[in-house]
Amino acid sequence: MAELDQGRRAILRAAVAGGAGVGLGAALAAPATAGDRDDGSRPERRLRIAILLYDGFTALDVVGPYEVLCRVPNASVVTVAKRTGPVRTDTQVLALTADRSLRQVPEVDVLVVPGAGDRGVLAAMADAETMDWIRRIHRRTTWTTSVCTGALLLGAAGLLRGLPATTYWASRGYLESQFGAVVVPERVVQTGKIITAAGVSAGIDMALRLAARLADERVAQALQLAVEYDPQPPYDTGNPEQAGPELQQLALKLLADAAR
Amino acid sequence: MAELDQGRRAILRAAVAGGAGVGLGAALAAPATAGDRDDGSRPERRLRIAILLYDGFTALDVVGPYEVLCRVPNASVVTVAKRTGPVRTDTQVLALTADRSLRQVPEVDVLVVPGAGDRGVLAAMADAETMDWIRRIHRRTTWTTSVCTGALLLGAAGLLRGLPATTYWASRGYLESQFGAVVVPERVVQTGKIITAAGVSAGIDMALRLAARLADERVAQALQLAVEYDPQPPYDTGNPEQAGPELQQLALKLLADAAR
Repeated sequence: MAELDQGRRAILRAAVAGGAGVGLGAALAAPATAGDRDDGSRPERRLRIAILLYDGFTALDVVGPYEVLCRVPNASVVTVAKRTGPVRTDTQVLALTADRSLRQVPEVDVLVVPGAGDRGVLAAMADAETMDWIRRIHRRTTWTTSVCTGALLLGAAGLLRGLPATTYWASRGYLESQFGAVVVPERVVQTGKIITAAGVSAGIDMALRLAARLADERVAQALQLAVEYDPQPPYDTGNPEQAGPELQQLALKLLADAAR
Repeated sequence: MAELDQGRRAILRAAVAGGAGVGLGAALAAPATAGDRDDGSRPERRLRIAILLYDGFTALDVVGPYEVLCRVPNASVVTVAKRTGPVRTDTQVLALTADRSLRQVPEVDVLVVPGAGDRGVLAAMADAETMDWIRRIHRRTTWTTSVCTGALLLGAAGLLRGLPATTYWASRGYLESQFGAVVVPERVVQTGKIITAAGVSAGIDMALRLAARLADERVAQALQLAVEYDPQPPYDTGNPEQAGPELQQLALKLLADAAR
């Protein structure tokens, strides 16, 4: 078809901009770190970002941060789970592939721990290998982050005791009562090198803030445009206070009904 | 650990709300359709929702709508690709599993076509099997939807000629010049049974609007809370007009650098 033949030029203006070398190198330069090379120059060490997958995780908790962080200059994102291969979400509808096992990933710069429904979170918190891995990885991260009920995994690993943190709106009480965190009902909460995000979609907001720290504000602003994050939610029911008790009950019922 | 033993009660209030039967059945009742059963009652036909995966797709284009639509009462979401098994994203970093092949899915109520980078979109548009499947499925859908450059696939399938549509900000000109769509630079555009969404994260906004039509507004409002969609983007750079030309160039460069 003529249309498709014509279509063989760039669809996004990306190809033009990328190819033309528009002089943005300086803005993109990542901080150089790590060892020497034979020629005496210092190679840029990749910024290693690991996203934990575990049975029953919530897909958007992973993919929101991924879509931003994978485009931070010099970053290398990898999915990690107990075993490599497909890991099913809370609804069982989607499976994401884990490319590395916990054992294959001894150290990263940034850890992202997504949330899950009751079943997934309880199983992960009860799994010694997962908890040990989170604790061990956290010791050497630059940033340890969670989305949604991922904060409960950080809490169960003992990382949030006495510290301000946020989580899924319906799990705030649990995070506080079980793990001694001081719940701050905000969208993104930073304490030292730990950043917790509120529920599900809040991972996008968290990742953009993190991108500004991993690179700089211009990069984070460009990444917000790259994912065209100009949100226009149809309602003002995205937080529990505005939604009110009836919609809270309905939301929880819809979540329970879709959980497998 | 004592904490984990105590942890064996519900983490989300979901288990309580779901189990207690809080009388929300009416609000959740899906419209009954389809054939008779032996007892003379009309079983509820599942609302069949298919999300197309293809090599090089953009993950958030898929997972934003999925996270909302999989919780619409009575909905059944399935991932579909040329072949079942893992399909890699535009960055190659993530793989989502396709659970059905195109041949296994002859008809659905709702089709979601995600976008991709240049490579993925060009390959999909040039693939006769994929284009034929989209055209064939579209004939019998209730809703045919796209996110981001997914609109280009609808355009290449001949579905958007002369019709208002939106797409990724950097692909507006392409959609118009190649496929004769009338680009409306809005976040979500409906024309008849076709709904197109702007780039990447706009799939969340689209899916919430679609959920209101598939169920009702209360359900859509509750789903917005279920994914805690109370966006707080750190910048006002999520659309190209506000971001300006310099950030546009940087965004396109970051996209090109991460594309594989």
